[in-house]
Amino acid sequence: MLAAHGGAELRDIMKTDLHTLPVDLDQEIAAERFQDTDLVSMPVINQKEQLLGVVHVEDILDVIEEEVTEDFQKMAPVSTLEEGIRDASIFTLYRKRIGWLVILVFMNVFSGAGIAHFEDVIESHIALVFFLPLLVDSGGNAGSQSATLMIRAMATGDVTVRDWVKMFTKEFSVAIALGGTMALAVATVGLFRGGPEIALVVALTMVFIVIVGSLIGMSLPFIFKKLDLDPATASAPLITSIADIVGVLIYFSIAAWLLTL
Amino acid sequence: MLAAHGGAELRDIMKTDLHTLPVDLDQEIAAERFQDTDLVSMPVINQKEQLLGVVHVEDILDVIEEEVTEDFQKMAPVSTLEEGIRDASIFTLYRKRIGWLVILVFMNVFSGAGIAHFEDVIESHIALVFFLPLLVDSGGNAGSQSATLMIRAMATGDVTVRDWVKMFTKEFSVAIALGGTMALAVATVGLFRGGPEIALVVALTMVFIVIVGSLIGMSLPFIFKKLDLDPATASAPLITSIADIVGVLIYFSIAAWLLTL
Repeated sequence: MLAAHGGAELRDIMKTDLHTLPVDLDQEIAAERFQDTDLVSMPVINQKEQLLGVVHVEDILDVIEEEVTEDFQKMAPVSTLEEGIRDASIFTLYRKRIGWLVILVFMNVFSGAGIAHFEDVIESHIALVFFLPLLVDSGGNAGSQSATLMIRAMATGDVTVRDWVKMFTKEFSVAIALGGTMALAVATVGLFRGGPEIALVVALTMVFIVIVGSLIGMSLPFIFKKLDLDPATASAPLITSIADIVGVLIYFSIAAWLLTL
Repeated sequence: MLAAHGGAELRDIMKTDLHTLPVDLDQEIAAERFQDTDLVSMPVINQKEQLLGVVHVEDILDVIEEEVTEDFQKMAPVSTLEEGIRDASIFTLYRKRIGWLVILVFMNVFSGAGIAHFEDVIESHIALVFFLPLLVDSGGNAGSQSATLMIRAMATGDVTVRDWVKMFTKEFSVAIALGGTMALAVATVGLFRGGPEIALVVALTMVFIVIVGSLIGMSLPFIFKKLDLDPATASAPLITSIADIVGVLIYFSIAAWLLTL
């Protein structure tokens, strides 16, 4: 330990392959650096490489918890809650939740407008209403799945914006398989509830809705990332609402076309 | 530094207020201990307090990432994906997603059955269909919000099972405020689309649906926890599907009652 004494300078023993962190680095990215390097502390420097301080890995744990909480709440979607839910006042909770809920109500007015447009088909085939929640929700559910997988893959760095085409092709193949299976399930129900014509309509609708829903769910995180927004903004309820509108249009368009042949 | 030499034993200088980790401790709980103590490493002991090894905080970072990924995927809901989505085969992705999607389809058959039960009311007031996605989704959205807040609060230890009554009361108050605001919004649309009677039906329905949806969303994570299941199983699509069934019943019951007065 004391072997390097006697006139020799520190430059002879110091290590120079340093991992440093720029002072303006995003805390979330710093957390990833700690994960990649397995170091317990890293020096922080400015643009002139002057040493400003040090960050320890235990401080990074708190950063990760905060970021995860933020991402979770975006998926709800709830505006970020600074305090815990236990201490938050009723008014704070109201304020954090009402915005998104009202926005989603007004997005759903478009689904309603879609329904109103097809009132004639619905009135002459009231059994179609039976399958409305089932079909429309399936698009939203498939879309939520792919959005969640994509948001997480982007957060861990597994997928970047450049992978869009690759991911789109993959999602398309998966969605055809998913939609096909679900179409079989729903066709059986359709046969019992409305006869062969309705069964054909709901099966065909299911395939289209699952494909379109999945591709919307998969693409939205990429679009948000491209627009420099957090990919996690593509929350399940947002995708559900968009998938609802598209689903209503697909369903009744197919119904109007097949049932009036 | 070398002042304690000369015959003195280590017992005189050693620290004895140790934070140790039992070898069978859940990794997620160990992660919380590191967060609480701000230590960079902790010794691991067995039941006889024999020293077995040591865990460093940088290993805990990977644990947190895995756990977070698991929680995220439960919210989708997707079965946990071991590899990244980039490397996963199309068949793996299909297998991980199809189970939940088919379960949700069959849950939605109940919504359909609810609708079929009220076919007469719907046929004589076709404008009711216009508001169906809007009202039913609002219950699911409010429920997803409270479930997400609750799952996160339980994961960070902010809320435990004993807080159920306290949280229920709080959620009830928040839900009345949310439902009231959304009822006003939807009553305006109802007045234009269907007249004062329809406006009354949709406003009243909105209040009930948001309250019931919120309470379901808030309670499910507690119920899963009580049953020793992961609270995160109360995913958005599961809550949406339950809220859909309940929502359809609330909506058309209120409509049948008010419109045939």
